Amino acid sequence: MKREGVLYVISAPSGAGKTSLCKEIIDIFPNLRHSVSYTTRPPRNGEVHGRDYFFVGKEEFDRMVQEGEFAEWAEVHGNFYGTSLATLKESRSEGIDLILDIDCQGARQLKGRFESGVYIFILPPSIEELRRRLDNRSSDSPEVIERRINNAAGEIKEARWYDYIIVNDKFTEALEQLKSVLVAEQCRTTRLLQGLSRLFSI
Amino acid sequence: MKREGVLYVISAPSGAGKTSLCKEIIDIFPNLRHSVSYTTRPPRNGEVHGRDYFFVGKEEFDRMVQEGEFAEWAEVHGNFYGTSLATLKESRSEGIDLILDIDCQGARQLKGRFESGVYIFILPPSIEELRRRLDNRSSDSPEVIERRINNAAGEIKEARWYDYIIVNDKFTEALEQLKSVLVAEQCRTTRLLQGLSRLFSI
Repeated sequence: MKREGVLYVISAPSGAGKTSLCKEIIDIFPNLRHSVSYTTRPPRNGEVHGRDYFFVGKEEFDRMVQEGEFAEWAEVHGNFYGTSLATLKESRSEGIDLILDIDCQGARQLKGRFESGVYIFILPPSIEELRRRLDNRSSDSPEVIERRINNAAGEIKEARWYDYIIVNDKFTEALEQLKSVLVAEQCRTTRLLQGLSRLFSI
Repeated sequence: MKREGVLYVISAPSGAGKTSLCKEIIDIFPNLRHSVSYTTRPPRNGEVHGRDYFFVGKEEFDRMVQEGEFAEWAEVHGNFYGTSLATLKESRSEGIDLILDIDCQGARQLKGRFESGVYIFILPPSIEELRRRLDNRSSDSPEVIERRINNAAGEIKEARWYDYIIVNDKFTEALEQLKSVLVAEQCRTTRLLQGLSRLFSI
């Protein structure tokens, strides 16, 4: 029974644990792949072109925008990020599930175009805990942390229009919830009906 | 964070494994209870009034129908079955999740009244496998089996309007899927928002 690939879109304020959850969930579902975004930001140490991002210049990015090659794109902290429309369409028709780890601006654009997608928001258990987690990352300066906290307050307001909210208090519980969302979505009547109608003439 | 109890409505053709799945799932979720139906059918060996069913006479059942005490009721194979409206409302307001194991006629009535309920249909992997399972139950005569198979074909057509379909091929996988549906539904934004808005002013 060939079925359409499902698009999972995950957003979260910085420090909510989105990246770790996405990494773990990929290992659980063999049919699930991480969608690689295009970005104009320079690669960080250890990042690989084609695995972490497709690193492109601003000119190339602008050309892709103009030619409608992005399903969504957004500017975040002065850098541009975009998701290839062709990749989303191919995965869907080939029955491959995709997980997109993108910010709220991009997710909103997708929501309009990919209604059958599953939109998931990861929340920290509280703003205080978010601050504590960001403080514990030695990588960020106090100014960066303050900016991230302010951004978080704005981003969290966006959670309302997502389909699911996962509160990442304990990591293993949050992962279990994310996994459950993926399994449950695959049992949705709307996704199953095509294949089942052949078996049961329903 | 007090939340509303969730109503899970499960239907399936006889032999799909609904009863075993419902029994197991109750043990997994401490906040989940089985809703006890009213019925006019006589108790079978070992059945306990108030645990398996509330056994009532036809007159009492009719009175309850007339006074609007049922959220749903239906006649199945000449016996009447009904679910108390008061129980559903109380559980919802007390934050207790309820699982209702009822036939499609009853489920349809609930769907109109309890839109926030979760409607789950359990399917056998095929009609052939359903026949094999019913044959293996020594309890049923060939005529009863034939009637159940014919009923199943009609009931399966109802699966379309349920929210989720679980194909019970391997029991442990079906249980995992049912569990995932319950966990995922508890992460639905619409169910969480009331509690979360207090924490994050969203």
